[in-house]
Amino acid sequence: MKIAIAQQNYHIGNFEANTAKIIQAIRDARMAGADLAVFSELCVCGYPPRDFLEFEDFIERCINAVQQIAAETGDIGVLIGAPSRNPQPEGKDLFNSAYFLYKGSVQQVIHKTLLPNYDIFDEYRYFEPASEWQTISFKGKKLAVTICEDIWDLVENPLYRSRPMDQLIRQQPDIMINLSASPFDYVHAENRKKVIADNVKAYGIPMIYCNTVGSQTEIVFDGGSVAMDASGTIVAELPYFQEALAFVNWDGTLSADVAGTTPHNAYRNNFSGNTELDPEKNIALIHQALLSGIRDYFGKMGFSKAIVASSGGIDSAVVLALACEALGAANVRALLLPSQFSSDHSVADAVELSRNLNNQYDTIPIRGVFEAYEQALEPVFGGLAFSVAEENLQSRIRGAMVMALSNKFGSILLNTSNKSELSTGYGTLYGDMAGGLGVLGDLYKMQVYALARYINRNETIIPQNILDKAPSAELRPGQKDSDSLPEYEVLDAILYQYIEQRKGPRELDAMGFDKTLVARILKLVNTNEYKRNQFCPIIRVSPKAFGVGRRMPIVGKYLS
Amino acid sequence: MKIAIAQQNYHIGNFEANTAKIIQAIRDARMAGADLAVFSELCVCGYPPRDFLEFEDFIERCINAVQQIAAETGDIGVLIGAPSRNPQPEGKDLFNSAYFLYKGSVQQVIHKTLLPNYDIFDEYRYFEPASEWQTISFKGKKLAVTICEDIWDLVENPLYRSRPMDQLIRQQPDIMINLSASPFDYVHAENRKKVIADNVKAYGIPMIYCNTVGSQTEIVFDGGSVAMDASGTIVAELPYFQEALAFVNWDGTLSADVAGTTPHNAYRNNFSGNTELDPEKNIALIHQALLSGIRDYFGKMGFSKAIVASSGGIDSAVVLALACEALGAANVRALLLPSQFSSDHSVADAVELSRNLNNQYDTIPIRGVFEAYEQALEPVFGGLAFSVAEENLQSRIRGAMVMALSNKFGSILLNTSNKSELSTGYGTLYGDMAGGLGVLGDLYKMQVYALARYINRNETIIPQNILDKAPSAELRPGQKDSDSLPEYEVLDAILYQYIEQRKGPRELDAMGFDKTLVARILKLVNTNEYKRNQFCPIIRVSPKAFGVGRRMPIVGKYLS
Repeated sequence: MKIAIAQQNYHIGNFEANTAKIIQAIRDARMAGADLAVFSELCVCGYPPRDFLEFEDFIERCINAVQQIAAETGDIGVLIGAPSRNPQPEGKDLFNSAYFLYKGSVQQVIHKTLLPNYDIFDEYRYFEPASEWQTISFKGKKLAVTICEDIWDLVENPLYRSRPMDQLIRQQPDIMINLSASPFDYVHAENRKKVIADNVKAYGIPMIYCNTVGSQTEIVFDGGSVAMDASGTIVAELPYFQEALAFVNWDGTLSADVAGTTPHNAYRNNFSGNTELDPEKNIALIHQALLSGIRDYFGKMGFSKAIVASSGGIDSAVVLALACEALGAANVRALLLPSQFSSDHSVADAVELSRNLNNQYDTIPIRGVFEAYEQALEPVFGGLAFSVAEENLQSRIRGAMVMALSNKFGSILLNTSNKSELSTGYGTLYGDMAGGLGVLGDLYKMQVYALARYINRNETIIPQNILDKAPSAELRPGQKDSDSLPEYEVLDAILYQYIEQRKGPRELDAMGFDKTLVARILKLVNTNEYKRNQFCPIIRVSPKAFGVGRRMPIVGKYLS
Repeated sequence: MKIAIAQQNYHIGNFEANTAKIIQAIRDARMAGADLAVFSELCVCGYPPRDFLEFEDFIERCINAVQQIAAETGDIGVLIGAPSRNPQPEGKDLFNSAYFLYKGSVQQVIHKTLLPNYDIFDEYRYFEPASEWQTISFKGKKLAVTICEDIWDLVENPLYRSRPMDQLIRQQPDIMINLSASPFDYVHAENRKKVIADNVKAYGIPMIYCNTVGSQTEIVFDGGSVAMDASGTIVAELPYFQEALAFVNWDGTLSADVAGTTPHNAYRNNFSGNTELDPEKNIALIHQALLSGIRDYFGKMGFSKAIVASSGGIDSAVVLALACEALGAANVRALLLPSQFSSDHSVADAVELSRNLNNQYDTIPIRGVFEAYEQALEPVFGGLAFSVAEENLQSRIRGAMVMALSNKFGSILLNTSNKSELSTGYGTLYGDMAGGLGVLGDLYKMQVYALARYINRNETIIPQNILDKAPSAELRPGQKDSDSLPEYEVLDAILYQYIEQRKGPRELDAMGFDKTLVARILKLVNTNEYKRNQFCPIIRVSPKAFGVGRRMPIVGKYLS
């Protein structure tokens, strides 16, 4: 039996495009002589469809698309993911299902049992878990079909009380097939292969694992679908961060097809528990994930042009370099917005950066506008001293300037805030916190430096001075980040323990961090929830990003 | 047996304040001779604690607080809500529990079975459902204790596959006691009494129902706890939108205690399925909910002063009036920000409004700043025509002005966007969409008018001209909302069907709405998700508010 694995990038709710893409892969697979083509979880509508699932109209379109795809089968079996209706009066109205299509129609529908409902996942919001399990008989073989999370609970402290494979294995299946929408983060990728290997070992049969690829707003799917034989050997590994159609032969043993994809640009990780932040770790993967996040945000929103406020600092330099790589330098415009507090090197460094990148840049000094505000506000502010109000005002003028260009020329503003700033509230709402997409919002400052070094790995794209100088917001004379915040080495280490590892004050104390500093930082994190709540989507690269995967009360009073 | 019902307003994560408040009520109840005191769901930590529950430190504090409260019992039995740990290796680590405290210690812990995971609820994210059920024996009686959602599934098409009361009733309990955190919306309140009555009827025993009160960021809890006897008669009804401690006597039959609270400011609803938007419906309740939302947002964030951009339009007028009522006029400042496109009546109406309300107002014309921007942008914009960029720029200047005052004087900016605008994206990010709290974001424009009339019910607070004139953003000469949007009567009716009722294009077509108009409006709603994603929390008054309860893909391509 020849099996095609279709690793594709879908557009949520774009049934026309998704259906066309699936049908094309079915035709290609049939042309290549495949018996079975496997697609990923909820591929018909794209993952995650979120509350679109609450619309009857949306479900109808899903089911119509399934019918349309079924009509394209015939002599090839196809496994696709789509929601299906729960016919029972009890329980939620939908299942998250795998449809087995063959000879022009739906032959069997398998439902997901384990519904992830943590971090970015909300599946129990929509779906009823499966309560019965059946293998699929196809060409004399029995297929045990599961969906994503279904195979992830083979652990010592399981999150669920039962496992679908424990039920399916009683029917003596010949192979496991898993349809996934398993997102990237810089820890997850390696886990994934281990999970597949654990399942193969536990159940003693091979597995075909088909993942989706591409970014959906903040969530990056990295692909990396695999076929693993019963001994735990990977016989085919699909590429990361790109679409692919691969084939494996399965005749007693599983093997890569001559036309199949063999391992390439594969993960080479060096995890060891990740109990501490290592800024260099998997920085090449993070780089690819961010490019995917930018590309698909623009592509799926129907935009091609980006604008970046280029300050001469490390964050905007990295964002500008990534934007030029993802979208092409011709589509990226930098705006330099110096004030009276900007140092000479800020403008010079930003200019040098754009020359290296070969992207358009313009300089608009903001002093005149700032003075106009000061004059207008004088009757209300009177003789009150320069304060955070004036600091924020400069940042907001810059925000309004880049948004004016964004509106005038139809480009999307890329935000440059990093995770250290967002954690501590070191940023101005409607100022430097403005933008359509947060490129660095899931990278601590030390990771931003590591990424800058990675971007410069072959040639100097980001001027060395940008990497060397002390970070500053330049909103008052001689200001440095270190006036308000601890050094980033210490800050990032504490933030990582609190945000990624969920350590409390006593645990941080036991780890040797300064008690007063910890209390101050945790208070900053928790009192700035209201700011992050108004922030744009952040491309997610860590296991705990700000945004949909981290849900905190705003009026709470905890460690604050 | 005398039972105290403690309807209290908690602060999420503020263990010191919550514990003190609970202990005070226990003392008051004991002083009044109560045998049993009943509190609400998760009262120890406040509801909803969201991802604070993922912190081991937070759980420890919850459990320490329970111990501290237990030490205050003695001869009085107490039922409080707090998370508890799941001792089994399988399943999630926590339960959402009711602790029965007596004689200084925890006697029994009951777990919630039905975990809501829809709209604003995420309980399956944190909690394992109960899988065994026990009544509590106390002073010769058997109490069937459940938590909120546990009693809500007595319907024809149940969301869950089993009901805890069906298990508990086998142990022949004498009374049901439900600990709730059941939020307000203008439909929910009446449902709640019906649900209690349905349970009393189904199981044939009385019910004590204790709800929390007060607002937690966007979610308003309205209290309205009740004691209902076995015949379905309400013997005690606690007030709405305020704290209360009430007593009932229960000796075979349930009756109001002499010191008990009898029905007052009770709901008088006129629901009839709510298949269409009726802007006048329950407007008095909505008014109270908004006051609660404003008051608690400020109180729990530790702020007292508000600022409002007062345009002379209906939305800002209503917000200003509500803010003055909730916080006191002395704490509310209005900023009038006329441009060259503002009509004369705008300023005059806004001035008259603030005079009626007796709150401070200042006028800062924005023309000078606008011209400074135009001059600064001239090298980049060249001779390009006035466009949406310049319209938005004016709005952003106003946003920066009010934020400058907010930063300078330590006040919170109240946002004035309504649900019709937010639905269609008729607003400027970082401009009129700025603010800490969205007061009207869950009210369609027609409801805003109804609320304005309600505010004026006894005297003219909002000048009649503000109610009479055609709505306009005044961002270009002679602009009217109706240039860009259909009339609000039609717009609101379609939005209500799409957002609250989840009707798709074909269903709207069948209802007689214009096909082209429907397509245009649905597209506006769906393509503006990115704007709403950056909006502040909205006080929730409807069953489907924008914010945490409505989760949509941003890069999606559905009806757009």
